[in-house]
Amino acid sequence: MTENLKSPRRRQMLAGSASALAAAGAGAFALQARAQAPAAAAAASAAPAAPQAKPLPGYAAWKDSNSLIVHTSNTIETKRSAFGTSVITPGERLYVRNNLPPPDAAILANRDAWELWVDGVKNPRKLTLAELKSLGVETVATVLQCSGNGRGYFASKPSGTPWQVGAAGCVLWSGVPVRAVVEALGGVASGMRFMTGTGGEKLPDGVDPKTVVVERSLPLSAMGDALLAWEMNGAPLSLAHGAPLRLIVPGYSGVNNIKYLQRLAFAASESDAKIMSHGYRITPPGGKADPSQPSVLEMQVKSWVNTPGGEEPAKAGRTMVTGVAFSGGSPIKRVEVSVDGGRSWRDAKLVGPDLGKYAWRQFALPVDLAAGTHVIASRATDAAGNVQPEQRLENVGGYNNNSWADHAVKVTVA
Amino acid sequence: MTENLKSPRRRQMLAGSASALAAAGAGAFALQARAQAPAAAAAASAAPAAPQAKPLPGYAAWKDSNSLIVHTSNTIETKRSAFGTSVITPGERLYVRNNLPPPDAAILANRDAWELWVDGVKNPRKLTLAELKSLGVETVATVLQCSGNGRGYFASKPSGTPWQVGAAGCVLWSGVPVRAVVEALGGVASGMRFMTGTGGEKLPDGVDPKTVVVERSLPLSAMGDALLAWEMNGAPLSLAHGAPLRLIVPGYSGVNNIKYLQRLAFAASESDAKIMSHGYRITPPGGKADPSQPSVLEMQVKSWVNTPGGEEPAKAGRTMVTGVAFSGGSPIKRVEVSVDGGRSWRDAKLVGPDLGKYAWRQFALPVDLAAGTHVIASRATDAAGNVQPEQRLENVGGYNNNSWADHAVKVTVA
Repeated sequence: MTENLKSPRRRQMLAGSASALAAAGAGAFALQARAQAPAAAAAASAAPAAPQAKPLPGYAAWKDSNSLIVHTSNTIETKRSAFGTSVITPGERLYVRNNLPPPDAAILANRDAWELWVDGVKNPRKLTLAELKSLGVETVATVLQCSGNGRGYFASKPSGTPWQVGAAGCVLWSGVPVRAVVEALGGVASGMRFMTGTGGEKLPDGVDPKTVVVERSLPLSAMGDALLAWEMNGAPLSLAHGAPLRLIVPGYSGVNNIKYLQRLAFAASESDAKIMSHGYRITPPGGKADPSQPSVLEMQVKSWVNTPGGEEPAKAGRTMVTGVAFSGGSPIKRVEVSVDGGRSWRDAKLVGPDLGKYAWRQFALPVDLAAGTHVIASRATDAAGNVQPEQRLENVGGYNNNSWADHAVKVTVA
Repeated sequence: MTENLKSPRRRQMLAGSASALAAAGAGAFALQARAQAPAAAAAASAAPAAPQAKPLPGYAAWKDSNSLIVHTSNTIETKRSAFGTSVITPGERLYVRNNLPPPDAAILANRDAWELWVDGVKNPRKLTLAELKSLGVETVATVLQCSGNGRGYFASKPSGTPWQVGAAGCVLWSGVPVRAVVEALGGVASGMRFMTGTGGEKLPDGVDPKTVVVERSLPLSAMGDALLAWEMNGAPLSLAHGAPLRLIVPGYSGVNNIKYLQRLAFAASESDAKIMSHGYRITPPGGKADPSQPSVLEMQVKSWVNTPGGEEPAKAGRTMVTGVAFSGGSPIKRVEVSVDGGRSWRDAKLVGPDLGKYAWRQFALPVDLAAGTHVIASRATDAAGNVQPEQRLENVGGYNNNSWADHAVKVTVA
């Protein structure tokens, strides 16, 4: 029997029933939300609630519903138990987060005819996907992670989807390097400091487009390993994940990887679209978003345990602890595992192929668990020396949660 | 318009019609089958025939039928155009070759209860899959390739499925290293020279089990990187690919990766099952199979072009040539591409992540194709210095075809 220590479901349950509060030891739980180390070990136990199953939306009906938690038609999360141990997250199990509903599937009738405007280069012009395919091909494995992944563990209950660990996956992308496209168009025009991608979603009528368009600006350096991708995990890109063309910016969080890419522009300043100027900003508790605050860009060092877990009861004895670890673009150097909520740690082994600095690494550690309850946590360190912190950085939007204490799991074995 | 130079379909057409023979320049074709270099360039053109579509069998109904050629209910091939460029072959596009029909899906009702007999170790015993999972976990990317892949290009028309390039894929497997299991059981018993895996298929009634059982013996050294796998590409293994447990022997051809594994035995001699003693032997033309002939074991250096190709017409101008290259267990060091049937060669670039010596590498080379017909070939060299040969080694079973000339494609661009 496994339970996320701070699952949103549990919080709902606690909020909804005074007797449940008492039974679950809600005092300890509330305390734990801002507790000192070892925070995770202090949490009390509670009976898990079965997730409420919503159907997959039509554009994602091909996915494996058993592996997913459908929050809304545009927010679908991978279950912690569904990541497996084979590095790559299969498309059927990969999360979905759309800022707008996806375009009509008719845009895929002739993929090669899709047009991309490239601006802010010496020779700006429109290219078809067929032309892009002739300019180069590269493949990169990246962690794709929604900026709000782990938001469900924030005590402040930010608005937005209460993701646990599953708004993330490790995916193979194939496409043309942005560098190759820029080179073919004469290079970046002088004075440009940002790379801006614009999505091709249909915008709702009657509203200022700037308030709804999916458009993000990244520092020019992000161009380095960026791809314009038409393939994911060996198959043509799906509508759910941005077909026919998606901007992939390795190391940057999900929202920066623009789906249905219709414009790529190099510019002197950041886009003034609302999703850039006020969305995805790290706003201090109690504050309001503004463009002076840091934007959600490169991902930070993070890891979590995937097994033991799931819905099946675990047995006492030898158990394999497995999970994943990654950083923005620095290789993972070390993952430690604790089975006592952070009191003591042991080095896990990194297993499986290394798919490069933008991919996640799997880790594994065999442990002997006696009958009883154990709080299992993982803590990653990258090659740049960044260590996954115990506590999250509180912010209004609930972004960038990489707290190891928040991501710990409580496992009861018999 | 693309065509395999020696596609089985073309041969059928040639065999079936005298006028078609003349129209297709069958003299040149017949000559070419044993021609000197550059063999591929000598072949004449013929109109392609649309593949005859058969439905997927029930156990593989979840696969992507558009990416596959169904030969029979137990032999399903990936189309050359369906490999993509993302290194890993998605399960939906992966070939299937079963020597016997798969067991009933009921064997997956409780995967963890599946039992494996391990014999020929100091402490032989039965282990459940749950026990195996507690002993270790590793992930490896391997090329899985049927020994008969490329059989369709043999001029001798061997019996067996006329596979072209698609009885192969590159797949991620997760499971416990065989070494870890053997260690837990006290090590290999003395005098053992072979590792024998036995499949759990239901055997037909009324025949000697030895004549039908899927059982293969490998040299003890094959244990080194072997896995007992329960997961493929990040999802629980499917019945089509050997669930709940499959022996994965990196570098060895498909048949040696026993599905539905029910027994793993270390033994002093090879199995006397017919599939081992007489099946999968390299029998010289005109000969009969016998156990003194080499068995189909480690794979050899091989590559092929995947694009340009497919069913869409190509346009003259800049085109990206892409394909895959691998060897039995030696890293790929070099891939050359020819667009003139082997008269001249240029080095392609290896692209995408390197998933280790048992995986394939992608290669890419931009070429400028004038309007007309071009014969595109690739030739791989591994780190041990093995160079993919121009000609196949003729043998009765049609095994181990790694001829670059056989695998060339003829592309007509306008």
